Amino acid sequence: MTIGIIGLGLIGGSMAIDLRRNKFADRFIGCDNIELNALTAQRIGLVDEIVSYDELIKQSDLIIISVPVSAALKMLSDVLDKINDNQVVTDVCSTKEKLNDSVHYHPKRRNYVASHPMAGTEFNGPWAAIPNLFAGRAGIICNAEDSDYKAVELVRRMYDCLNMRIIYMRAAHHDVHTAYVSHISHVISFALALTVLDKEKNEKNIFDLASGGFASTARLSKSNADMWTPIFLQNKENVLSVLDSYMDKLQQFKTAIQEHDEVALRHLIEEANRIKRILR
Amino acid sequence: MTIGIIGLGLIGGSMAIDLRRNKFADRFIGCDNIELNALTAQRIGLVDEIVSYDELIKQSDLIIISVPVSAALKMLSDVLDKINDNQVVTDVCSTKEKLNDSVHYHPKRRNYVASHPMAGTEFNGPWAAIPNLFAGRAGIICNAEDSDYKAVELVRRMYDCLNMRIIYMRAAHHDVHTAYVSHISHVISFALALTVLDKEKNEKNIFDLASGGFASTARLSKSNADMWTPIFLQNKENVLSVLDSYMDKLQQFKTAIQEHDEVALRHLIEEANRIKRILR
Repeated sequence: MTIGIIGLGLIGGSMAIDLRRNKFADRFIGCDNIELNALTAQRIGLVDEIVSYDELIKQSDLIIISVPVSAALKMLSDVLDKINDNQVVTDVCSTKEKLNDSVHYHPKRRNYVASHPMAGTEFNGPWAAIPNLFAGRAGIICNAEDSDYKAVELVRRMYDCLNMRIIYMRAAHHDVHTAYVSHISHVISFALALTVLDKEKNEKNIFDLASGGFASTARLSKSNADMWTPIFLQNKENVLSVLDSYMDKLQQFKTAIQEHDEVALRHLIEEANRIKRILR
Repeated sequence: MTIGIIGLGLIGGSMAIDLRRNKFADRFIGCDNIELNALTAQRIGLVDEIVSYDELIKQSDLIIISVPVSAALKMLSDVLDKINDNQVVTDVCSTKEKLNDSVHYHPKRRNYVASHPMAGTEFNGPWAAIPNLFAGRAGIICNAEDSDYKAVELVRRMYDCLNMRIIYMRAAHHDVHTAYVSHISHVISFALALTVLDKEKNEKNIFDLASGGFASTARLSKSNADMWTPIFLQNKENVLSVLDSYMDKLQQFKTAIQEHDEVALRHLIEEANRIKRILR
């Protein structure tokens, strides 16, 4: 089997590493519209060969679209236009509803499996690709009923091969949940970095004083604008709704501190502590 | 030399581990108003002996106050009342100005060194104490000119023995900087946990979907209310000021997303990415 990866960054590259290692396919080809990424991916052995976008579609049994969600939205129906009946297409995007809607009536819709491996780091590019990125994480397959059974099986086996926990979900639900457990974390981390950078004109202070706590909360603020700008825009309604709830919680903290209300403040913190039951 | 640790939690306990290992003193005694903490600290070998608060003050050459900042504020002048001229007192609290002010005119002020080892985890209690917690982190000594030179030297050597980078600073500056690089991170993490817990009534969803990004941003929300409630209140003005700046940044994200302003959104993210130069 030949796997074609469109977009040789952190996710596409890390998938290639483990799929190859676990012998899911015998040939990996790739393309990337950034030439340096493509050359690097080949040089460090993520793929066997760099080919053109059209050649990749022609030669691959399974095509993985791992590009920013805005590019995927433009690309997906074009890829489906070009495949034959036996080829399968999947994507790894962090927003699913708009992408699904874009090909809902496409004659090859059943060859496409909408998916999202929920894993990542704050780094990007082929040099950020690492083994074991996906192990134990959620591998989400959306709207499986709109895909051919065999296509879903192939993608399910792929995530199984990456040691992911497979979860089936509606695209609309996926986008609500990811707004809560992923997208909002990025917004608040970006905003934290901006706040601290604004204040601490003397960057040495941040460097000298930054504790592990700050590093952990600000980690995601290193994430890539090419990837995250379109995610926030494609998941606009959900992200705005979560952001409103979040700002409301901050306002509760602000009021409790302003009014020196120790009881209310303690209550807020203890309620937040309930996350311990879930996150270990 | 005998070191007396008042408050045998994460910080006091972790200091005991490394100060003993690095042979900074030959005897460690402790007290804790929570009996279970005291018994545990002795049982797991953090201290050689548990004594009463008064006995600890009597027997110790160096007294380390490592209790929540509200308790420290009540305790510090009492400890200074009870020591003799050769004893040294330090504290490890996350807010420094109010504590300093509270003993500014105390006749034993020069026996006290205000300090803050900037390290921690989201856990608490003696069972959370770990080796090497402080290595490479900032060990801050505040208003050193108000302390006796020898007392400062002893505390400086202690942080040196913990492999900390020693930084001298005014208490007021300390409180501004920690509001930015530590306290605000806790507020935003607590608020994130509250937002997600509110929404995801079905905790299984959070557990299934939570990615590494969420875990990292929500990590601090496990932090202890006994410790953090008084920190926010003692550093009220600074925390509120940072919180206002922070909410302003969130509002900028909100507006950019609402108006589908890709350019503004990308600009915000790329500005936030500048944190990469500082945090590695």
